[in-house]
Amino acid sequence: MHNIFNYLNLVWFPRIFIFFAFLISFTFRTENLTAQHYALSSPDKNLNSEIKITPDGSITYSLTFKDRKVLNPGSLGLNLKNQPDFSNGFLAVSEEKSSQNNSWEPVWGEESTIINHYNQLELSLSHAQTDRVIHLQFRLFDDGLAFRYHFPRQSNLSYFTIADELTTFNLMENHTAFWIPGDYDTNEYPYFTTKLSEIDATRAQHFSEIGVKNIVGENVVQTPLTMIGGDKDLFISIHEAALKGYPAMYADVDRSTFSVKAELAHDKNGNKAYLQTPFTTPWRVILVTEQPEDLLASRTILNLNEPSKIEDTDWIKPQKYVGIWWEMHAAGKSWNYADVSNIKLDQVDWDTLKPNGRHGATTKRAKTYIDFAADHGFESVLIEGWNVGWEDWYGNGKEEVFDFVTPYPDFDVKKVTAYAKKKGVKVMMHHETSGSVTNFERRMDEAYDFMDNYGYESVKTGYVGGIIPRSEYHDSQWMVDHFIRVAEKTAERNILLNSHESTRPTGLHRTWPNWLASESARGNEFNAWSSGNPPEHETILPFTRILGGPMDYTPGIFQIKLDYYNSESPWQVKTTLAKQLALYVTIYSPLQMAADLPENYERFPDAFQFIKDVPVDWSDSRYLDAFPGDYIAIARKDKHSDNWFIGAITDEKARNFDLNLDFLEKNSTYTAIIYGDSEDAHWKENPMSYEIKELQEITSQSNLQLNLKPGGGAAVMLKKVK
Amino acid sequence: MHNIFNYLNLVWFPRIFIFFAFLISFTFRTENLTAQHYALSSPDKNLNSEIKITPDGSITYSLTFKDRKVLNPGSLGLNLKNQPDFSNGFLAVSEEKSSQNNSWEPVWGEESTIINHYNQLELSLSHAQTDRVIHLQFRLFDDGLAFRYHFPRQSNLSYFTIADELTTFNLMENHTAFWIPGDYDTNEYPYFTTKLSEIDATRAQHFSEIGVKNIVGENVVQTPLTMIGGDKDLFISIHEAALKGYPAMYADVDRSTFSVKAELAHDKNGNKAYLQTPFTTPWRVILVTEQPEDLLASRTILNLNEPSKIEDTDWIKPQKYVGIWWEMHAAGKSWNYADVSNIKLDQVDWDTLKPNGRHGATTKRAKTYIDFAADHGFESVLIEGWNVGWEDWYGNGKEEVFDFVTPYPDFDVKKVTAYAKKKGVKVMMHHETSGSVTNFERRMDEAYDFMDNYGYESVKTGYVGGIIPRSEYHDSQWMVDHFIRVAEKTAERNILLNSHESTRPTGLHRTWPNWLASESARGNEFNAWSSGNPPEHETILPFTRILGGPMDYTPGIFQIKLDYYNSESPWQVKTTLAKQLALYVTIYSPLQMAADLPENYERFPDAFQFIKDVPVDWSDSRYLDAFPGDYIAIARKDKHSDNWFIGAITDEKARNFDLNLDFLEKNSTYTAIIYGDSEDAHWKENPMSYEIKELQEITSQSNLQLNLKPGGGAAVMLKKVK
Repeated sequence: MHNIFNYLNLVWFPRIFIFFAFLISFTFRTENLTAQHYALSSPDKNLNSEIKITPDGSITYSLTFKDRKVLNPGSLGLNLKNQPDFSNGFLAVSEEKSSQNNSWEPVWGEESTIINHYNQLELSLSHAQTDRVIHLQFRLFDDGLAFRYHFPRQSNLSYFTIADELTTFNLMENHTAFWIPGDYDTNEYPYFTTKLSEIDATRAQHFSEIGVKNIVGENVVQTPLTMIGGDKDLFISIHEAALKGYPAMYADVDRSTFSVKAELAHDKNGNKAYLQTPFTTPWRVILVTEQPEDLLASRTILNLNEPSKIEDTDWIKPQKYVGIWWEMHAAGKSWNYADVSNIKLDQVDWDTLKPNGRHGATTKRAKTYIDFAADHGFESVLIEGWNVGWEDWYGNGKEEVFDFVTPYPDFDVKKVTAYAKKKGVKVMMHHETSGSVTNFERRMDEAYDFMDNYGYESVKTGYVGGIIPRSEYHDSQWMVDHFIRVAEKTAERNILLNSHESTRPTGLHRTWPNWLASESARGNEFNAWSSGNPPEHETILPFTRILGGPMDYTPGIFQIKLDYYNSESPWQVKTTLAKQLALYVTIYSPLQMAADLPENYERFPDAFQFIKDVPVDWSDSRYLDAFPGDYIAIARKDKHSDNWFIGAITDEKARNFDLNLDFLEKNSTYTAIIYGDSEDAHWKENPMSYEIKELQEITSQSNLQLNLKPGGGAAVMLKKVK
Repeated sequence: MHNIFNYLNLVWFPRIFIFFAFLISFTFRTENLTAQHYALSSPDKNLNSEIKITPDGSITYSLTFKDRKVLNPGSLGLNLKNQPDFSNGFLAVSEEKSSQNNSWEPVWGEESTIINHYNQLELSLSHAQTDRVIHLQFRLFDDGLAFRYHFPRQSNLSYFTIADELTTFNLMENHTAFWIPGDYDTNEYPYFTTKLSEIDATRAQHFSEIGVKNIVGENVVQTPLTMIGGDKDLFISIHEAALKGYPAMYADVDRSTFSVKAELAHDKNGNKAYLQTPFTTPWRVILVTEQPEDLLASRTILNLNEPSKIEDTDWIKPQKYVGIWWEMHAAGKSWNYADVSNIKLDQVDWDTLKPNGRHGATTKRAKTYIDFAADHGFESVLIEGWNVGWEDWYGNGKEEVFDFVTPYPDFDVKKVTAYAKKKGVKVMMHHETSGSVTNFERRMDEAYDFMDNYGYESVKTGYVGGIIPRSEYHDSQWMVDHFIRVAEKTAERNILLNSHESTRPTGLHRTWPNWLASESARGNEFNAWSSGNPPEHETILPFTRILGGPMDYTPGIFQIKLDYYNSESPWQVKTTLAKQLALYVTIYSPLQMAADLPENYERFPDAFQFIKDVPVDWSDSRYLDAFPGDYIAIARKDKHSDNWFIGAITDEKARNFDLNLDFLEKNSTYTAIIYGDSEDAHWKENPMSYEIKELQEITSQSNLQLNLKPGGGAAVMLKKVK
């Protein structure tokens, strides 16, 4: 124990301060009998925001788009735990306006240059009652408003706990919303499409295939919360950017007034954020566009994130990978080596334990994948279930669940990595934590040393299960910090990161571009063992979850129906085969898996050619035609060639596209290779029926007809001929 | 997300099992209409225990000592969370008796050989309703009963959570008890001495000098709970041994029936222990002696712990140390470098921050201590406050509070450790965590690497503050495991450990003998800045806290009154100077600090000679005369010479000892150097008045008169002459 009295002395100074501050406040308050008004416009003047400090010192903001109100005045502020009310009593003591119009080059992305153009207003607000100061920073882009709170270093405020964030988005009408439940632990739900008034998150309670669910409340939903307003001519999405040192935000929807309040994830003590000044909250973002395609083209969330903290980024390589993975989900293979339900890592003689005969990650199988990757130009092979601990890894709240360095006896890590090296292929490490993060953090350095030793250059992390520390949820502040810690640690060691079951992204991959992708949504694997993802699913993801950052969706399943492996399986992927190909273009990620088994690709080498050809890094992207929940058609230009690629997908409805190709280089000629649904294709009835056509002499004057069948899609390679 | 259905399949097997088990249970239950009885005696037959399975399958045990009842039948068992009742329905299906009578040699201790002599009964109990099995293991030593629960590996029980431990100690009378509050976070209270009926833990609420208090309940107290019964001829102590993988136990006292129930620390989710079979609980221990001295001589708690897990123990060196420490507590020096209340480790330019001029851990001051240690034969120098972070380390719930590797600008770690090396002295590392254990665990390896680099061979850890993970308390299962993790990690790296603010000991130093000492009680420093430790304090500690293991009490304060440093200080150490010397013998620890400033020792070189001479490792110990709360006189023989040492202390009353020295070697002669209170000495009025006498020709036939003044003591060196 140490002498705490030295420290208690310090407590008296602030009290004297407060007393004087209170005297001063009289003067201030007298001046503030009328409201203070501030206005901000977007560079194109279409978006306008008014910020007001009311006579009682509350802060509100509103938003209009052209002549339409988007947000009625909504409150701003934060309340601190065990501290005087912080929702009013503010006076703006200074105002600073500035603008930015520049561009930057992402390490990887949907285009090679991103324009960052906004007008900014920064208000410094003094809170007389407590003699404290906060700053409010507003940025108006042409496609959205963003604001955040900043607590500067100050003598009256060092450490504090957030009790509640008061931020409110007062929507004007009963928009149609694409929502999943706000859940402290998962984002792995299919989307509901309802009016705001009809939101009921408890409808998602029955998705028993999701391991750990903690639905926040009936009317609390996840962000990005994307909505359609007006006469389908207003597209709004509420999200956040640069989530660091703070919990994830949910949208608490008042179903009668359409007022949406920021609801923060808390820890199990009920606290939302433990903060120290200086601190800046994540950005609160409201994207607003007239065209749905412009929502997909928005880079506002990326622009709000800090530039790369990694100086030398040459080692960061967007890539495609295959892996021992789908066969566990779909084809009866197992992650675990033995069928026992109770193991202790250091007490099992793995060499004598009876193998179950279904173990996926064997040396032999790994070599098959490595050969396949080498033959077809995939950079990496993911191998899941390689390390001991899978026998009782899930649902036991077990802390010492994996050690991340001990392979099963039938997986010879030396042989496998040497073989991969010989073949010019990298093995992707898998660090499933089972949610036991204290265990992972203790072993992380050793785990990365192991990767160094064996030449692993990328890692897929997993967090399936309730979180240990037992005070935490997947979305609470401590876990948000953990995920960033992993991004930083892996960056330091030149490791590429692919995080699953992490907090949904908020553009942090700009800052840590080694963080190639996250799952953090309902991925393709749900199709292997549950009601799965309805045909509309992939038309919603880019308008919601993927607005925050790339998703490791793991497309490319060719063997659509899973009774192929097990005649009793009722499951299937709810797309056509051609749509699986189109997803490589419509779902942007610098990391794309070809998720099916090598044997299945070998059955369909012509279709597989598209997966081999499609790039994962782009110099340009054009959002040709899209509507959330219905269809998406995107064209992207390869960053390393003159070829363009198009992906078009539809929901359960057949749909024809007549695409204008005016984005192609003038005076150039292209050959189009079209991987499309056959005439008789149908996601349910006949999903694997595809046809490949080649069209010559395509130019920027050409139009491209794509006929998509129910649940179908088309993938197109536009190969520049001259 | 992974396929959890594979795992769900497993769930059905147990259900079927349970159904059959239920059928079988009918048979069992029919057989068990009468109670089952088992008896166990201590080797000397004085202690007898009866274990009974009642007709309804509850388990009870009782204890008698000679012809006296010590414990009425008390219940045994554990209830599991969300599982069928586990408090009855048991049937003993097998019984196994065994005995041990052997001895072992501790790496260090109060004697060189420890006898381990007990009779054991092991019952295997079947629980028909759930088809589960537990084992109960009882051991009767001549000075106490111990029992524990064992959950074997079994198909019906792999993972479970303890909701409640039912163990009850049904005491027979309203004993006088020495107690401190059961507290989830601290043991740093002075002792209360009351009848069991008068226990009221809330009386301790006012000790505001204790940073983080979480008192369990009015009638819940800490163990070891030591009591005096009968006509002061029965001494009982309830404690536990080998606390691993389980939370600390408190004593929940029924103040009218004197029934004491085991109350386990829980985490902030209300769960007590997350367990996996096979699992064995800590031992529940009831020490029973007729003589108070025999309680001090008991090695039952050590015998119940596992032998050393460290094979080569040559590097483990009991030792005395000095350090930059008391001057922060008593003499106006500070741990922190600057007087600011808000720092972020990576955002401060320490070289330009204004130093407060009071910083203790400077290069210069470190050299003074190193010189002093070298001159006077101390093995190590502790230096606290050497590393950045102390400015706002306490009470802020700050996670990234220290990095354990960055010295302050005025502490040149290279110079200091090089200087120490030259002088043949070791520097003791200090790892204060501020309770932020997630931060510490993340940085632990780096911290130990740092120690390796600079030649540190021992570490003092500290856990002042609320625990992070925020689900935990100092005494909850996760923290118990953490403290052991640190013992293991330091053992692996040949580092000696001295843990402060850790769970109170339960004999684990037998298993990890590098864990030299813990604080885990109210140490000497409380005298520097609070109502402190009353004169009786050190006469109680060996009968309570220290029964579990050595304490780093930090005795040896010569400058008793602290107005010496600051004329306004009301504080003082509540002993005479001579008593401070006696503590080196009465408070056993293989690690003893000479806690005062070198300058103070230089003022009293004659008295200081005792601290230089007294060993910290013993071949034999004799508990000559002792009564908890009143006095203690102990003689110990140096492990490395033929010299004996005696320490005698008293509470606030003057007391004369007439000690029989028959433990001395026959036919040998000794010179006694007696460091005692002067005639006018008094802990309050005249504490620094001591006298040193030398007596020649002392033999085993001699008696030694020691006159102790109020709050006084005497320290004796018996130097063998021939």
